[in-house]
Amino acid sequence: MKSEAAGDMSAEEFRRYGHMVVDRIARYLEEVERSPVLSRAAPGEIRASLPKAAPRAGEGMHDILADFETKILPGITHWNHPGFMAYFAITGSGPGILGEMLTAGLNVNGMLWRGSPAATELEEVTLDWLRQLMGLPNPLFGEITDTASSSTLYALAAAREFAAINPPEIGTAVRPLRVYASSEAHSSVDKAVMTLGLGAAGIRHIPVDDSFRMRADLLAAAIAEDRAGGARPIAVVGTVGTTGTTAIDPIPEIADICERERLWLHVDASYAGVAAIVPEKRHVLAGVERAHSLVVNPHKWLFVPIDCSVLYTREPDALKAAFSLPLEILRTPEPGVTNLMDYGMSLGRRFRALKLWFVLRYFGEDGLAARLREHMRLAQIVARWAEQSAAFELCAPVEFSTVVFRYNLPGAEPEAANAANAKLLRLVNESGEVFLSGTKIRGVQVLRLTIGNLRTTEQHVLRALELLERTAEDI
Amino acid sequence: MKSEAAGDMSAEEFRRYGHMVVDRIARYLEEVERSPVLSRAAPGEIRASLPKAAPRAGEGMHDILADFETKILPGITHWNHPGFMAYFAITGSGPGILGEMLTAGLNVNGMLWRGSPAATELEEVTLDWLRQLMGLPNPLFGEITDTASSSTLYALAAAREFAAINPPEIGTAVRPLRVYASSEAHSSVDKAVMTLGLGAAGIRHIPVDDSFRMRADLLAAAIAEDRAGGARPIAVVGTVGTTGTTAIDPIPEIADICERERLWLHVDASYAGVAAIVPEKRHVLAGVERAHSLVVNPHKWLFVPIDCSVLYTREPDALKAAFSLPLEILRTPEPGVTNLMDYGMSLGRRFRALKLWFVLRYFGEDGLAARLREHMRLAQIVARWAEQSAAFELCAPVEFSTVVFRYNLPGAEPEAANAANAKLLRLVNESGEVFLSGTKIRGVQVLRLTIGNLRTTEQHVLRALELLERTAEDI
Repeated sequence: MKSEAAGDMSAEEFRRYGHMVVDRIARYLEEVERSPVLSRAAPGEIRASLPKAAPRAGEGMHDILADFETKILPGITHWNHPGFMAYFAITGSGPGILGEMLTAGLNVNGMLWRGSPAATELEEVTLDWLRQLMGLPNPLFGEITDTASSSTLYALAAAREFAAINPPEIGTAVRPLRVYASSEAHSSVDKAVMTLGLGAAGIRHIPVDDSFRMRADLLAAAIAEDRAGGARPIAVVGTVGTTGTTAIDPIPEIADICERERLWLHVDASYAGVAAIVPEKRHVLAGVERAHSLVVNPHKWLFVPIDCSVLYTREPDALKAAFSLPLEILRTPEPGVTNLMDYGMSLGRRFRALKLWFVLRYFGEDGLAARLREHMRLAQIVARWAEQSAAFELCAPVEFSTVVFRYNLPGAEPEAANAANAKLLRLVNESGEVFLSGTKIRGVQVLRLTIGNLRTTEQHVLRALELLERTAEDI
Repeated sequence: MKSEAAGDMSAEEFRRYGHMVVDRIARYLEEVERSPVLSRAAPGEIRASLPKAAPRAGEGMHDILADFETKILPGITHWNHPGFMAYFAITGSGPGILGEMLTAGLNVNGMLWRGSPAATELEEVTLDWLRQLMGLPNPLFGEITDTASSSTLYALAAAREFAAINPPEIGTAVRPLRVYASSEAHSSVDKAVMTLGLGAAGIRHIPVDDSFRMRADLLAAAIAEDRAGGARPIAVVGTVGTTGTTAIDPIPEIADICERERLWLHVDASYAGVAAIVPEKRHVLAGVERAHSLVVNPHKWLFVPIDCSVLYTREPDALKAAFSLPLEILRTPEPGVTNLMDYGMSLGRRFRALKLWFVLRYFGEDGLAARLREHMRLAQIVARWAEQSAAFELCAPVEFSTVVFRYNLPGAEPEAANAANAKLLRLVNESGEVFLSGTKIRGVQVLRLTIGNLRTTEQHVLRALELLERTAEDI
């Protein structure tokens, strides 16, 4: 506790509790499998266990850590659990956590180059490494943001600048802007369009084919229709690895249309883009070299602690036009340096490149590829199981580490089948051994099993399938 | 190194290097004063010292940490240095760093309540604690964002919803939206307005009085003029603690205007809001209880590691309307819980409440108030010095921990005086002992000394003044 008038925790005290916290994290990661993956806390339970106001006097770190143990941990859903197979499974990884520790210790703000030259330049270096690992063209401007939502917002703001849209003059006729994405695109595209002020009609969702890929012919038709109707198309968002089924939009065909129509092409590869690190999966990014921008999230499937999203663009000037302002207080004397605050909305920038650097070096290209390959191998086990099982059915092609499937209730009506799958999902998740997510595709309730955790092994996957089979029998 | 096909760093290896990193951070914080505050790296020097590609095979943590030492640390500008008095000085603090470590270890995404009930509920609890500490009204919805830039963007997006602005229909007459802020408001307001698609004309900067406070009469006149001209005012941003001079806009008068005109009032108190934790400074937030939203950054002057910004609003429904989408994959069975992803742009949400909880508990209300009070006492020493010195001049009232002053070159023309102050700033910063920032107010080059670091003592402040005096003599 520190109720004196000045100063920080002493170095000695920081050492003592820092070692305790390191040991606690190590033990947590070793033992995480013993806890139920989904927290069993009831709504409001954690809140009710905590005091209603901050303490007057400072408290000891020992007591604070004890409360972390008894009051916070039971309210944690364990994303580190090997049975976490919901949404997109993630892992922070040891080297990533060590990087975050140093980032917190240094506590620099990399808004300007001079705010820490290493923060800006290590970001440039690591993003160039990642660009090479993914086989992307050179040069490509890269920057780290917090999440894909921000990266996509920045990309679409740049697209607006690229189209040289002037703010409308009072009294002139409105010509609304349009962005296109498939009906399977991530909600962050919708949120970005809303935030940019394009309105709910500013995004047009293009239908998908039987494999959940955007229909390029319908994209071309929608653009023509909008132009004829007085709207102004500015950008198309293609997805490599959609959230629902990890489908890959036909990027080369979409790029043809964008080039013909002079539209910005943004590719959302936030989950699946890193698969291109695996040589035999490099093809999943075919055509992406023609995109104006691309988002990929090392905090999703590249073992970097949340948050770390990467936005690449070959049009950094458009990005800069969207976000830079001349400010006297931030004027710096160094010529020719990059001030990353000029390429995004946030002035404050954590030193996120450090953890990415640690992860890329510690695992190395081969180690990363081996892990991604293994996750895709495990997903194929699940896919084969769903295909071969009489009780289950595979519902979408498996390109990466995510499998979409459902339980076939013999002879059931669609609604009853949906209810059975929803019940199966709930019961399996209540087991505490696994956490899967569900979604609806074309009105059909499906289950989704995704692998991205470094602790998930074949044994965990087989156990999940056993649980699914056994639980389904009881329905 | 970890080139095998699967798995994370072993627990044993994590413990070993984790302890090393903790010891390194402790020593760094103890010894930071021995390094020059501003990095002396030349542009491109750090980049050139690093390999051009990621390694094929994994590397050992020992080597990675050695490179951190020799290649990264020299490129760090030390925001932890007690002589860091530029921009707004910040400190991560021991308990804050410990909180970040656990957040990285848990690696949860708090987008949904079920993603970790403790993440959502601890955010609710800590923000209610902070609300009470600052004397803000109850109830008030709060959420943590990365930076004030995001908080202000969210607030203005909510303001647009609050004004029930429908997306413009094709062919109808344009009626552009307007946001108002003083000429001293932070650039994040401009960036938010640009991002929201209101155009450069979407923000109108209202002139300030002799104390750099927004002129309420000119605000009212600008609103009337814009309405008459066909624009549609939606929001006013008042600032408590401007970036340049830490001026306090007349919030009660601005609130009167906003109520009369039915405009959203957003208050930017990102640096200075926490001063209200000090009982005798509570008055700086007078009128803020009438605002629709407020941003305050615990990562600025409340000893929480970057990033941690807080957005409060009494209109959470408007915020939700701006950002929520119904998504099947994220549908959850718990009734009545708050899913924080519905109140902002980013789907991914780090567990930032943990470090804030650690800091509020470790220092306690009295400990926080004592530290803020001490920083303001030190600023008054600088203010008295500037007032009493023949060679220096105080250029703005000192409300908080930031002092704006300049060197008076006897008999100099304005341009020569500006050049002399710019040179003084450069020379003092080159000393490596302190880092101050400069800015221009009304065309006049000034220096800015700000105190917010837990390691800054009276001795460091006196040394800075000595350096300023001695360097000025040589000019």
